Amino acid sequence: MAGALLTDLYELNMAASYLRRGMDGPATFSLFVRRLPPTRGFLVAAGLEPCLEFLERFGFEDEDLRYLSDELGYDGEVVDAFRELRFTGDVWAVPEGRIVFADEPLLEITAPIAVAQLVETYLLNQITFQTTIASKAARVRMAARDRALVDFAFRRTQGADAAMAVARTTAMVGFVATSNVEAARRYGLTVSGTMAHSYVESFPTEADAFRAFAEDFPERTIFLVDTYDTLNGVRTAIDVIRRLGLRDSNRLGIRLDSGDLEELSRAARAILDQAGLRNVRIFASGGLDEDDVDRLVAAGAPIDAFGIGTKMGVSADAPYLDSVYKLVEYEGRPVLKLSEDKATEPGRKQVFRGPEGDLIGLRDEPPPPGTEPLLVPVMVGGARTEPPRPLELARRLFEADLIRIPESAKRVQDPTPLQPSFSPLLRELTERTRSLALQRAGVLD
Amino acid sequence: MAGALLTDLYELNMAASYLRRGMDGPATFSLFVRRLPPTRGFLVAAGLEPCLEFLERFGFEDEDLRYLSDELGYDGEVVDAFRELRFTGDVWAVPEGRIVFADEPLLEITAPIAVAQLVETYLLNQITFQTTIASKAARVRMAARDRALVDFAFRRTQGADAAMAVARTTAMVGFVATSNVEAARRYGLTVSGTMAHSYVESFPTEADAFRAFAEDFPERTIFLVDTYDTLNGVRTAIDVIRRLGLRDSNRLGIRLDSGDLEELSRAARAILDQAGLRNVRIFASGGLDEDDVDRLVAAGAPIDAFGIGTKMGVSADAPYLDSVYKLVEYEGRPVLKLSEDKATEPGRKQVFRGPEGDLIGLRDEPPPPGTEPLLVPVMVGGARTEPPRPLELARRLFEADLIRIPESAKRVQDPTPLQPSFSPLLRELTERTRSLALQRAGVLD
Repeated sequence: MAGALLTDLYELNMAASYLRRGMDGPATFSLFVRRLPPTRGFLVAAGLEPCLEFLERFGFEDEDLRYLSDELGYDGEVVDAFRELRFTGDVWAVPEGRIVFADEPLLEITAPIAVAQLVETYLLNQITFQTTIASKAARVRMAARDRALVDFAFRRTQGADAAMAVARTTAMVGFVATSNVEAARRYGLTVSGTMAHSYVESFPTEADAFRAFAEDFPERTIFLVDTYDTLNGVRTAIDVIRRLGLRDSNRLGIRLDSGDLEELSRAARAILDQAGLRNVRIFASGGLDEDDVDRLVAAGAPIDAFGIGTKMGVSADAPYLDSVYKLVEYEGRPVLKLSEDKATEPGRKQVFRGPEGDLIGLRDEPPPPGTEPLLVPVMVGGARTEPPRPLELARRLFEADLIRIPESAKRVQDPTPLQPSFSPLLRELTERTRSLALQRAGVLD
Repeated sequence: MAGALLTDLYELNMAASYLRRGMDGPATFSLFVRRLPPTRGFLVAAGLEPCLEFLERFGFEDEDLRYLSDELGYDGEVVDAFRELRFTGDVWAVPEGRIVFADEPLLEITAPIAVAQLVETYLLNQITFQTTIASKAARVRMAARDRALVDFAFRRTQGADAAMAVARTTAMVGFVATSNVEAARRYGLTVSGTMAHSYVESFPTEADAFRAFAEDFPERTIFLVDTYDTLNGVRTAIDVIRRLGLRDSNRLGIRLDSGDLEELSRAARAILDQAGLRNVRIFASGGLDEDDVDRLVAAGAPIDAFGIGTKMGVSADAPYLDSVYKLVEYEGRPVLKLSEDKATEPGRKQVFRGPEGDLIGLRDEPPPPGTEPLLVPVMVGGARTEPPRPLELARRLFEADLIRIPESAKRVQDPTPLQPSFSPLLRELTERTRSLALQRAGVLD
């Protein structure tokens, strides 16, 4: 058991208060994104797997409890109650890799209210972050069409753990490899990478550096050609390929990392082709995002693969999502929040996806004919309903959803997201709950 | 020993190539930020401590080596060489908390080239991310003047590790507390937090919720008043304070989390004052960044403390820095990169801070009179020169530097960063090295 201090203090305060007064009724919290950033036409659900791992081992360790009593002053009765806490609830969620839109629950958790509250911070953190990155990377994928993509983000993600999540979620949306060795090992990904400018600089000449590297890795050398002068670098690479008698193959390549990539890729392709090296690939990198990739691919630049780093790895144009974790039901009673700019719909929900678009309804209402429910039970009574899913399954779900959503949501420039509608039953429940809440607040007395 | 796979594949390829050909000469790499984002007038150095921890324990574990040989195909000779690698080099760095500007090395590392190359990814990652957040949080600090600040970012940072770094770096720039319990324990920070909307909703009425919470935490209750109607909520809080006989104290407060915070804070203050609760504090939160805080404080809104979350926690307007890790010297020979848009200065450097501004020179040149060198040796021969510094020291360095930098760099709106100049000796060395590099590249033949 571990991880229960990975939370905000107010969760602990509320949990303590619930436990002290014996409030252990089931609460349902719904995690969803209220609004998509303007540059997103869709979101890709991600982050569920780390949430399930967290819930499975959720609990306080002895040293956690000592900290709470000795440093934060929680009394013995509360600390004893904390000691017994485990996650024994139910989780319904949209599987990783599926495409979702605003207001659609990504995850709904039903558990005794103290525990359901305590896990909020971690669940929000993981789902928000991983969905942010998967959705950004999916845009790069749209821009790249059939060109290969490699995750180069590790060096400038927001921490080393973030880099692992970036490698994992980019694989989900079709990146073919990552530069991140630890992530490749951990998630069974293909790893890719060649040389840096410093390698070239540490030899007396560029030719010396290229020769040394190609001797060491004759089966997978990509020459970084822009340390001194890019097109000179291409010629030096050709020279080394010839001298070492390497054969024309797509295991060999050159990498462009600066300058006008469209112009340089055309010039480099021409030089390589003229030298009879038609299969040697051109790899481009250097601060690229989906707009750069879109422009280069649309212009027909002869680039075979892109290395995508920082701007994707932090989702630079939209580094977070407007995600929330809202109480929607407590002890069988639907609940909502009235604050004008932050109102929410009550009740346990389901998303029904059909040819007409997405409908958000109540979990227990009959599915409209021809629709598919997006949320599935992933944990019952604190136990997973199935073993951890392989990443490949998330990738297939993403590919399958991609075919079904409209082009207007998928385009890189000015995408238009689908707007899910609300079922009549959900709208009715919302109205009823709102009247009751207003009465309780004394506004309609 | 651990952590050596926390790297990009190309670092391993280059290291393998260096080791295989016996290239073990000392290399110096310099880590610096090339350009500040337009909304930054200065940077706050952060991330050094995790880098030193990483370097101290740097090495390959047996299972790392198995992965490299069995999965990635490195040969036995290289794997044996990897097995022996430790970090035995020197590190000079700007201490955490100090204010720095573009082009100023934050860290310089001198070590046998294979190791110096392998640690690039992790060092860049940590320094870039933590400096990004510390610099963003420092802007919030500037905006807040004398109002208290609390880190509320955990739920939407880019991962849980990122949340720990955010709590740590915000403390460095003067935040008084964090909501993050694990970070508070780990770094000895003050932890802060009260209740969420879900707490209020889980009781039959708002008054019931307020009463329950105040009974449980009579010494530190902050009533969240905007679940139903904000000013009604303030009156309900007052009612509960009276009924429970709590005394007027700054341990009590109300929190505003939505709506027009200027207007609501004035109205709430008036209601509290009228009730004789002049010491009860007003706390504001809800998607705030430094621009919001600046506007509210400038308008004289009677807000005592701000909870700052997501936008600070991901540095939303500038979620990364244009940081690089460049080879500047190899085997005693100064090195530079010529690529037009990414040129670098060669040689080991020092930053001299004086009344005229910052001068970037060579590490071994005599310091200009009246200047202070910013980089200090923090590791010699792989060992720290001093024990880990307490966070409080970083905070003091930040406060001291803050007094010395010009107002134009500190202002929240349109800040103007200091431009460091280059010493004549460094400029000379750059020219000489450039000529040599052009010759080597064959451009000046």
